[in-house]
Amino acid sequence: MNGYAGQKDAYLKRLRRIEGQVRGIAKMVDDDKYCIDVLTQVSAATRALENVALGLLDDHLGHCVAQAAAEGGDVADEKIAEASAAIARLVRS
Amino acid sequence: MNGYAGQKDAYLKRLRRIEGQVRGIAKMVDDDKYCIDVLTQVSAATRALENVALGLLDDHLGHCVAQAAAEGGDVADEKIAEASAAIARLVRS
Amino acid sequence: MNGYAGQKDAYLKRLRRIEGQVRGIAKMVDDDKYCIDVLTQVSAATRALENVALGLLDDHLGHCVAQAAAEGGDVADEKIAEASAAIARLVRS
Amino acid sequence: MNGYAGQKDAYLKRLRRIEGQVRGIAKMVDDDKYCIDVLTQVSAATRALENVALGLLDDHLGHCVAQAAAEGGDVADEKIAEASAAIARLVRS
Repeated sequence: MNGYAGQKDAYLKRLRRIEGQVRGIAKMVDDDKYCIDVLTQVSAATRALENVALGLLDDHLGHCVAQAAAEGGDVADEKIAEASAAIARLVRS
Repeated sequence: MNGYAGQKDAYLKRLRRIEGQVRGIAKMVDDDKYCIDVLTQVSAATRALENVALGLLDDHLGHCVAQAAAEGGDVADEKIAEASAAIARLVRS
Repeated sequence: MNGYAGQKDAYLKRLRRIEGQVRGIAKMVDDDKYCIDVLTQVSAATRALENVALGLLDDHLGHCVAQAAAEGGDVADEKIAEASAAIARLVRS
Repeated sequence: MNGYAGQKDAYLKRLRRIEGQVRGIAKMVDDDKYCIDVLTQVSAATRALENVALGLLDDHLGHCVAQAAAEGGDVADEKIAEASAAIARLVRS
């Protein structure tokens, strides 16, 4: 099971929109649009991806991590370490 | 003219790859993959988009901003202010 | 109780070092050092602060959040929501 | 010469304030304050440092880079490459 199961459709919709944003950026480059306008769209797509990541992380903490913590033991420790590593990757990306 | 004209094909190729990464993330969600594995791919796509932005910014400084600065006057000041605003959006996204 | 209790001295040492880094940056500005050299030190201090934040977050998940999750109920939900909000602030800062 | 010369006092004031913020965070840790409250202050200090960096970068582009670009040649290219590297460090920190 995964933490985002209840909101799968919403995530799919957001990801399709981001895919469209990236395709739009490629079209802007192909059409020789002004650098700063391309950059504005790249920043918007980056922020949209980050928001998807923050949502997935919240779902993961609320389901997978919370459940493992309730059971305790080594699995709980592993889930926490794994989540912390994912957070670090996100903060540094 | 834009700053990335000489490397348009390389940017298009990178953007198509990122578009494919985002489509792959949607497929992972659709296939109910584990949250942390989805998050790892979201971080990778975010970083790839940031690298495109840094490349476009470097091209922009080296062409558009450098040329405006060589001409001087108000246009130069405007180009610098515009580039600084784009950098701020990037740092905060 | 807080999650970082076991490593209080290590955090204090890291924070004193960052305080010294910021004081060093002020001295560089006062001594009219080259912009790029000042910026390099600002990036280093920023990264050091982010690493402190990632450490505190890991401790918090491993202690406060894990304990609340083990107890379950509303408190668990609140702790998860609070941690997610802190992660979002960190990712966006 | 450096780009921030005209605003040296303002930068010194901002950096002293950030130094005080970091000292305040150390005091919070020493007083065993709640993790999330400490994290909120770390995010605030990180953002304040980033804003100093964005200011220094804007000054640098507007003075050092603009002047080098006006003179042209290898020095201009070097200054652009150096600024781009500083921007990349900032975006990734």
